[in-house]
Amino acid sequence: MAASASASLRHHLLLLRRPRFPLGPSPTFRTSYLPRRHQRLFASAPSSSTVENGEPSSPVEPSEGASVVDVNPPRGTRDFAPEDMRLRTWLFDQFREVSRVMAFEEVDFPVLESEALFIRKAGEEITQQLYNFQDKGGRRVVLRPEITPSLARLVIKQGKSVSLPLKWFTIGQCWRYERMTRGRRREHYQWNMDIFGMPKVRAESELLQAIILLFERLGITSSDVGIRVSSRKVLQAVLNMYSVPEHLFTEVCVIVDKLGKLTREEIEKELITIGLSSEAVQGIIEVLSLKSLPKLEEVLGSDVEAVADLKKMFSFAEQDGKLRAICGGGRYDRLLSTFGSEDIPACGFGFGDAVIVELLKEKGLLPDLSRQIDDIVFPLDEELEGPASSVASSLRRQGRSVDLVEDKRLKWVFKHAERINAGRLILVGKSEWERGMVRVKILSTREEFEVKAGELQ
Amino acid sequence: MAASASASLRHHLLLLRRPRFPLGPSPTFRTSYLPRRHQRLFASAPSSSTVENGEPSSPVEPSEGASVVDVNPPRGTRDFAPEDMRLRTWLFDQFREVSRVMAFEEVDFPVLESEALFIRKAGEEITQQLYNFQDKGGRRVVLRPEITPSLARLVIKQGKSVSLPLKWFTIGQCWRYERMTRGRRREHYQWNMDIFGMPKVRAESELLQAIILLFERLGITSSDVGIRVSSRKVLQAVLNMYSVPEHLFTEVCVIVDKLGKLTREEIEKELITIGLSSEAVQGIIEVLSLKSLPKLEEVLGSDVEAVADLKKMFSFAEQDGKLRAICGGGRYDRLLSTFGSEDIPACGFGFGDAVIVELLKEKGLLPDLSRQIDDIVFPLDEELEGPASSVASSLRRQGRSVDLVEDKRLKWVFKHAERINAGRLILVGKSEWERGMVRVKILSTREEFEVKAGELQ
Repeated sequence: MAASASASLRHHLLLLRRPRFPLGPSPTFRTSYLPRRHQRLFASAPSSSTVENGEPSSPVEPSEGASVVDVNPPRGTRDFAPEDMRLRTWLFDQFREVSRVMAFEEVDFPVLESEALFIRKAGEEITQQLYNFQDKGGRRVVLRPEITPSLARLVIKQGKSVSLPLKWFTIGQCWRYERMTRGRRREHYQWNMDIFGMPKVRAESELLQAIILLFERLGITSSDVGIRVSSRKVLQAVLNMYSVPEHLFTEVCVIVDKLGKLTREEIEKELITIGLSSEAVQGIIEVLSLKSLPKLEEVLGSDVEAVADLKKMFSFAEQDGKLRAICGGGRYDRLLSTFGSEDIPACGFGFGDAVIVELLKEKGLLPDLSRQIDDIVFPLDEELEGPASSVASSLRRQGRSVDLVEDKRLKWVFKHAERINAGRLILVGKSEWERGMVRVKILSTREEFEVKAGELQ
Repeated sequence: MAASASASLRHHLLLLRRPRFPLGPSPTFRTSYLPRRHQRLFASAPSSSTVENGEPSSPVEPSEGASVVDVNPPRGTRDFAPEDMRLRTWLFDQFREVSRVMAFEEVDFPVLESEALFIRKAGEEITQQLYNFQDKGGRRVVLRPEITPSLARLVIKQGKSVSLPLKWFTIGQCWRYERMTRGRRREHYQWNMDIFGMPKVRAESELLQAIILLFERLGITSSDVGIRVSSRKVLQAVLNMYSVPEHLFTEVCVIVDKLGKLTREEIEKELITIGLSSEAVQGIIEVLSLKSLPKLEEVLGSDVEAVADLKKMFSFAEQDGKLRAICGGGRYDRLLSTFGSEDIPACGFGFGDAVIVELLKEKGLLPDLSRQIDDIVFPLDEELEGPASSVASSLRRQGRSVDLVEDKRLKWVFKHAERINAGRLILVGKSEWERGMVRVKILSTREEFEVKAGELQ
């Protein structure tokens, strides 16, 4: 919420807003892919490979009793055709693999939640865009806009039975409802990692490490992404320096959060309006524009807790090299009490599925995700469908992926084999089968030979 | 829809209703776990290991502005705590592995769909229990009760660009809304496998093979489950035998579908009421009570297409041994035209996540799914947190799952290691670290030794 600092090209620190939850006193972070248009919680640009429906109007509008149904998914949502699904599965596998090495456990929650979980912070964009409605039983429900409240709910429910810290992750769909502009989506998937019961900055540092490990796996480097870190402690320290009264703290936060949306002049004006001295305003703006941790230390002094925390967090992170990402997170030590429970220190991030895919595309970092199967089994004769079926089934039992093809011409089968990157073509022909053999063709080498059906592997 | 037959203990054929889509002329199937209370599309009994909310009343009702939030998920829905999630992941992995060896491609769709997709068949239970509502834009939407219409929608959308047959699978959540009785759920997950563009009985036989492969993987045998196969062709053949007029066909189907719900006498009475001769009624009932395919052939004659199809399907299946399951499926060759498109032969099944888990529990077939991690790294001193963090991070880069623990007593760490089935404990102590070493303890053997930090693997 204050102080911008960038120690080197490797660490782009920008102390920025942490938008979603009641903040604890410790540093928060929000990593971002630099093109600014992507810095929304929900990515605005559609992933182009996905069958989407974000157009202002659909070609065919569905209506009750109409004879032609709308072939598009509901406005703002996506179908995942096989090629889109392969990409999504690959990305989620990366999320899961990183979560596994970090020793986080996977959890999941209903996409439909009670509205009560989300209306506690009126005025935030996330509550204005709730996809909420009343069910047939009169209950106010919502397609969740984020997953953290559900996590907190389960932590409260499990109560004393669990041993802290909890390290949980989840990958789930989140929704918002707003008027559709071109290409906007109403849903996205979000990878969440959360730690409950770890009050120290180690929690933030573990979460950062997870993000770094992900980027390493994906081949994304510090030249692609930057990290912004916010610290309420830093802002508090600056306010203390200028003896700004404590009751103005929240208001200052709200104004400082607008950094990047408003100009420097507009922010100065707003700070003056709520009663800050022009000296304090200048001081805050100065800290906001700092680009390195050492300079921050110079201004605030090294004995300030805020600086010590940040130094610790970055000394941990330093060991990890590349530090840039596209996600948002931070502490929410006081969320549980807003739900009427005892607070547990908590910290987490949400990482969307859209912006990262765009970045990977832009950088040419997406792997080859074409379809791939092991074998095609093809009977050359209708009478041999039974034998072909048993050949296929025996290969499948050995774990090979087998496409059993019937009622096609051989020419089609070869084209098909190419299209789906089949490894082998297994032809079941009459004369071979009478000798208990099948014909095997290795498609990459065009090699061809006969094998005993029972010995096919 | 007609003729019950059981060739042997291995094949429990029961020609039964196929409840959801306009039926084609070919055999349909519906496999079932024998305890009859489980034969609903949505399993009625909750999976006991899951944190559910199917109770008639929640301990704390949420209300706007209340200070204590309801810690339960919305009524009829589940949270997946880590242990529940491990079970779900394991089950879904089985679904995915079988789909992979069968060379099916994964697809996915929004859980929120247009209501128009589902209101085409008024009177079915599935439409009476729609979880539907109006969104803020006035559109009628629904939390989908099943996935097939979305699949069909995407097939229509892709149009001529795809090469048939398509073999698609998906695992997704489905919803229904009904008054909650104890333990009932409003959502479940469903594995769907569907084949588009394969008119012959090979499609059914491939789907059956998938189910059989799944059961083999799970260790479920023919003594645990049975299979029921329905064929409209069989019923048609019987009606032809007794010269029942064609316009009565649908009505006969509806009545015959009640088999198992009504007594034999009640079904006979209903058939008489719609105008069948008592001779025809006796003939139908006779075929319904047949217990083997050869007997069916005896009654109908071997030249009847219905019998030929069934014989083919079971000769394919015969090669697979164990044949029993818990799911429902069949042909829906005429679904696409109800959406205003050209029909494509189609066939598929839906396989829920609840009943199978119950069966596996009952049979003791669930694998050990306790948490398991490779290493715990623990600094013996606060000063060593940095080094411990870099040790953890290096192991994680090697793909090991590492829990980095701080601020705990050594005694807690040992207990924790046991609880999470850690393989090794890596202690970072001052005197060892000064020599560039860490202490490694293999937890299963209590073996203990020092390793150079840089050489730790």
